[in-house]
Amino acid sequence: MERIENFRQMSDFLARNKQRRRIAVVCGSDASTLAAIKLILEKDLADVLFVGSGAAVKASGLLSAFPASCSVTDAADAPDSARKAVELIRRGEADVLMKGLIGTDVLLRAVLDKEHGLLPSGHVLTHMAVAQLPAYGKLLFFSDAAVIPYPTHEQRCAQVGYAARVLRAFGIAEPCISLIHCTEKPSEKFPHTMGYAEIKERASQGEWGHILIDGPLDVRTSCDPQACAAKSIDSSVGGRADVLIFPDIEAANAFYKTLSFLAGGKVAGMLCGASCPVVLPSRGDDAEAKFNSLMLALMTVEGGKVSKE
Amino acid sequence: MERIENFRQMSDFLARNKQRRRIAVVCGSDASTLAAIKLILEKDLADVLFVGSGAAVKASGLLSAFPASCSVTDAADAPDSARKAVELIRRGEADVLMKGLIGTDVLLRAVLDKEHGLLPSGHVLTHMAVAQLPAYGKLLFFSDAAVIPYPTHEQRCAQVGYAARVLRAFGIAEPCISLIHCTEKPSEKFPHTMGYAEIKERASQGEWGHILIDGPLDVRTSCDPQACAAKSIDSSVGGRADVLIFPDIEAANAFYKTLSFLAGGKVAGMLCGASCPVVLPSRGDDAEAKFNSLMLALMTVEGGKVSKE
Repeated sequence: MERIENFRQMSDFLARNKQRRRIAVVCGSDASTLAAIKLILEKDLADVLFVGSGAAVKASGLLSAFPASCSVTDAADAPDSARKAVELIRRGEADVLMKGLIGTDVLLRAVLDKEHGLLPSGHVLTHMAVAQLPAYGKLLFFSDAAVIPYPTHEQRCAQVGYAARVLRAFGIAEPCISLIHCTEKPSEKFPHTMGYAEIKERASQGEWGHILIDGPLDVRTSCDPQACAAKSIDSSVGGRADVLIFPDIEAANAFYKTLSFLAGGKVAGMLCGASCPVVLPSRGDDAEAKFNSLMLALMTVEGGKVSKE
Repeated sequence: MERIENFRQMSDFLARNKQRRRIAVVCGSDASTLAAIKLILEKDLADVLFVGSGAAVKASGLLSAFPASCSVTDAADAPDSARKAVELIRRGEADVLMKGLIGTDVLLRAVLDKEHGLLPSGHVLTHMAVAQLPAYGKLLFFSDAAVIPYPTHEQRCAQVGYAARVLRAFGIAEPCISLIHCTEKPSEKFPHTMGYAEIKERASQGEWGHILIDGPLDVRTSCDPQACAAKSIDSSVGGRADVLIFPDIEAANAFYKTLSFLAGGKVAGMLCGASCPVVLPSRGDDAEAKFNSLMLALMTVEGGKVSKE
């Protein structure tokens, strides 16, 4: 497949995709969720199963406007909506889970339920975001700006693995992954950097398929070839990273918030590690951000569940 | 005084300033340092005392072009240059220390020397940077992107105090200081956020003069009034921060590198806490970044040592 390098190409790719994806929306009653779903339906990128908030969904007119690709299932309350949506995923009747107007804790309780949830044993639930930036010629993915405060070494390895898989779904045969630190030197003062060598070693043994990985690199040397040249850094990843793996949530979140506010970026995000992509928008995300996050999730659904027509 | 809101206004202010400042440059033999100093001399913003690297300084032509405001002192080697420059500061013969082509460790050894150095007992040496950004209407200061890995509570308090003092030197009577975290909720999972309430309490008792301080806030809610409105955050600082105090160096450094590379920002930096501002450029800083950092340092020299004419 071709490389997908911006949100427009994502939309075009999904519209052409023969595999029909289905989004389960939990309590999708708020305006920006409904507006994002309307965009999905208008562009015919997926089918949509609303779970709960039936009155608001009916009032939105989406059911009558898109009768073939939009339906609603009633639920008693928010926890019931979450459980029913998770059950749709488990039965293979939906491919992506999306949070509407429901507490994050309520939805995650259903996702993380040991018996009836979506997290396979040994998997790590972590956040991945992607940014389209005026100053960078391709998409830039990064983890974890929202879920794991201080990733352990094994959690970081899981982030690398998810990144490799997601990037391949974007047609990037050899993803360039950068392990971020404030300098280029590993140091005992920063215990996470001491594990970077082991991650590179595992990568070179093919644990995550064909990837290029390097670090520690800082945000600038990861993305700016001139900064690498000025610092005489000779790296297969430096200056052209596709993915930044941040040391902690504070660093990743500062990056995320700076991109969307100060760098003119469009940012989308989802959770990886569950048996389906989970779209968990933050308060304040507008319809476009939610739509872009849904596209990111749809791009990364594994396998083909249902074919169009 | 008027509020200084960008680098141009800094330059104008310093050019009009009647107090004559003197910069001691340690091993200033590299091209970008010499170019930055040339800008300082051309704009007549300060006098310059080169310490060491006499041959390169003479070859630059600066001594003959600016004989009244530029001089050189010989030194045996880099450590000797650092010691002699520190001694100039201690004797009150220079106001700002600048690193040229010398190892950071060598310069800092002289600065931190218990007997002959520049760090008063009980002071905290920490980095402060300032950014001028196309997407923000005023200067944005932040700590610590370069020196303290994980600030303790007391180090964070020192950062707040330095920020308050520096901002006042920029004519900002009531600086808005934001204590950064990835969410707006303090949490035991993030021990640094548990100290934020105490910092706000000390501020309200006037410990750092007239300041507005709030947190935890994230980078976006600190600077974007619309994000505050969307999240129903009612804060005296939210949406209009002058200063961001980051939880750790990884977050501050990610912010710093993102600004300069992806957000079209111009960034300057210096060390606070020593008995004079110390300009410690990073490899890869160009002449403009070094010039801007010198201006930042000159703005924050305390008291008037020497008058012009």
